[in-house]
Amino acid sequence: MKLLHKVKRHIADNELFDKQSKLLVTVSGGVDSVVMLNVLSELGFNLSIAHCNFKLRGVESDKDENFVRNLAMHMNLPIYVQEFDTEIYARNHKIGIQEAARNLRYAWFFELIDENGLDFINVAHNANDNTETVLFNLSRGAGLEGMRGIVAKNNRVVRPLLSCSREEIMIYADNHGLTFRNDSSNDSVKYSRNRIRHHVIPEMEKINPSLHTTILRNCGVAQKLTNFVEQCMKHEIEKLIVKQTPGCILTIDIGTLMHMENNTLVLYYILREFNYTYSDCQDVISCLKGEPGKIFEADGYKLLKDREYLFLKQLGNEVTIQEYHFTLDNYPDDWPAELKLELIETNNPLDILTPELSVAYVDADRISGSFILRKWQKGDRFKP
Amino acid sequence: MKLLHKVKRHIADNELFDKQSKLLVTVSGGVDSVVMLNVLSELGFNLSIAHCNFKLRGVESDKDENFVRNLAMHMNLPIYVQEFDTEIYARNHKIGIQEAARNLRYAWFFELIDENGLDFINVAHNANDNTETVLFNLSRGAGLEGMRGIVAKNNRVVRPLLSCSREEIMIYADNHGLTFRNDSSNDSVKYSRNRIRHHVIPEMEKINPSLHTTILRNCGVAQKLTNFVEQCMKHEIEKLIVKQTPGCILTIDIGTLMHMENNTLVLYYILREFNYTYSDCQDVISCLKGEPGKIFEADGYKLLKDREYLFLKQLGNEVTIQEYHFTLDNYPDDWPAELKLELIETNNPLDILTPELSVAYVDADRISGSFILRKWQKGDRFKP
Repeated sequence: MKLLHKVKRHIADNELFDKQSKLLVTVSGGVDSVVMLNVLSELGFNLSIAHCNFKLRGVESDKDENFVRNLAMHMNLPIYVQEFDTEIYARNHKIGIQEAARNLRYAWFFELIDENGLDFINVAHNANDNTETVLFNLSRGAGLEGMRGIVAKNNRVVRPLLSCSREEIMIYADNHGLTFRNDSSNDSVKYSRNRIRHHVIPEMEKINPSLHTTILRNCGVAQKLTNFVEQCMKHEIEKLIVKQTPGCILTIDIGTLMHMENNTLVLYYILREFNYTYSDCQDVISCLKGEPGKIFEADGYKLLKDREYLFLKQLGNEVTIQEYHFTLDNYPDDWPAELKLELIETNNPLDILTPELSVAYVDADRISGSFILRKWQKGDRFKP
Repeated sequence: MKLLHKVKRHIADNELFDKQSKLLVTVSGGVDSVVMLNVLSELGFNLSIAHCNFKLRGVESDKDENFVRNLAMHMNLPIYVQEFDTEIYARNHKIGIQEAARNLRYAWFFELIDENGLDFINVAHNANDNTETVLFNLSRGAGLEGMRGIVAKNNRVVRPLLSCSREEIMIYADNHGLTFRNDSSNDSVKYSRNRIRHHVIPEMEKINPSLHTTILRNCGVAQKLTNFVEQCMKHEIEKLIVKQTPGCILTIDIGTLMHMENNTLVLYYILREFNYTYSDCQDVISCLKGEPGKIFEADGYKLLKDREYLFLKQLGNEVTIQEYHFTLDNYPDDWPAELKLELIETNNPLDILTPELSVAYVDADRISGSFILRKWQKGDRFKP
């Protein structure tokens, strides 16, 4: 009864769904999903079952399928079952079996709810899964994003058991005489996760017996904090990004960046999706005042420090150096510069020569045809 | 040689100090502090030694002191030694031994550098200590702040060994034939820390052998992120806090709060130092549209939801309801309201009565003496 109450409150607190919602309950046959199915049924929700047969454990996989089919029959619930060629898919897409199984099942779940007018996909992650995810992310260095753990509601995927510990789920199954299937893949496939589950977490629970609840609460705040940071970052980033330059993914204003508080962090939030590390961004920031021309490479990208701007470009498929032909009356449509050509008629050329850094004077009598604008290339010389 | 280079770079990257700095090196006699002393000496810095004798381990404590005195003599460095009555201090201040020792030594270190014209206090925390701190904070639920770990430079306290693992430090000691003392308190006193050190971390290192470096990098970003969040929060909080109300610690504008993005999080950043949890703040936010009068209590504080404002007050030492006596010409010095009294002379009183919510008309002929301004109390009635 305690678990029932906990789930009910979790559903309300996180606004997962309501009594009108049509729920797809994904049931593997393991204790978590069997308890989820029973709890949602006891709470009187409108349910359909989905079961995936990944054909990865031979006859065991088929026994799981039969178990879930029987469960659906006894509970008088509609059931959808799908078989997958997980190994072939993994091989074809050059990904691991776990990732293949995840891609396949979520693609199918979304298809199912779209085709059958259902609202939410219920997945049986619990508080222990969340703690494992946080510790796993921490050990790999996933930062604030990793500290968010598993979210209770992500678009149309919901997790009604997320606030319950594995122990509470086992006790519920026991008290209600529920039968379930043991997933034999659990112990072998998820090597790192099992290390965390069986060795790390029990020790940390000795320090804090309410570890899962504590971490779950932290994750909630980390989720809100991530939103807040992203919202603030958006404002900061908008100040930095200037109008698009042809051939560039991003153009960043150096002057603004130099005078911005927390500029390394903001730059990192811009560049991290292009494989730059925080340390790379520290290097960039420390070179802002230096000579132009410096290039910072990351996997697949390069960042050029010019005079006023940082230009981010893709590596590899670089376009041949673009040329823009222009005359006094004719600029091309994609004219990228603020450069303008002006004809000054005079009998005393030397009189009009006022020295300015952004102006060059050329004798119109000595040239013909069109001008060409292109980037500086090795060997080019210019004496103002 | 590798460690020497690592420390040198860490000092430069984090701008800990330079060749002109006068460093106080705190040496317990354990391997970390002995290696720190040797590395800083090899790097040619200007050093003085400080050693605390906490008198907690009888003859062992005195042997440590002698060891460090000898070390200083051989290295020809000035040394400061202080004995503490740690147990008496702990008893008098009703705090634990560890906290007492920390308070005592830092108070003395700061005294030392002030009195002797020194610049920085060098403490021998390493990358493993940092990982332990992060995991300890995580298990207790310390949020983003806890993920910052140990900082390389905090005001005048610096940690030159922070980027080095315990293993690297041991190898350096071994290669340089350094002798050091084993701290026997290490295994018994810090119970939770040792659980993390001996059981949790070794398992996590099997998942990521560069665990300490990974976590150290994460901590760096978490430190910057905390700064960024605090800076953004400051802006948001400024929008919410309105002018002080007598008897209140804080007055928060409900209208602004209701329409603010991430309002629960912002409210949490305001109220967390007054013992409110994130969940308390969720409750407050969900009641903003409701009737006034609701009170939310946290340890030592209460938050009153009024019509336009949230008032935060201290519990316990509540003042008796304050009264302000005023007349036409005389307002008290601490006059809290924008209320003003004005005498209008007229022969046709009904002509001047323009209905306005913020104005009340009273017949001057029918009153005498001073007015009293006070909060609404049960039983008060007013018909405009």
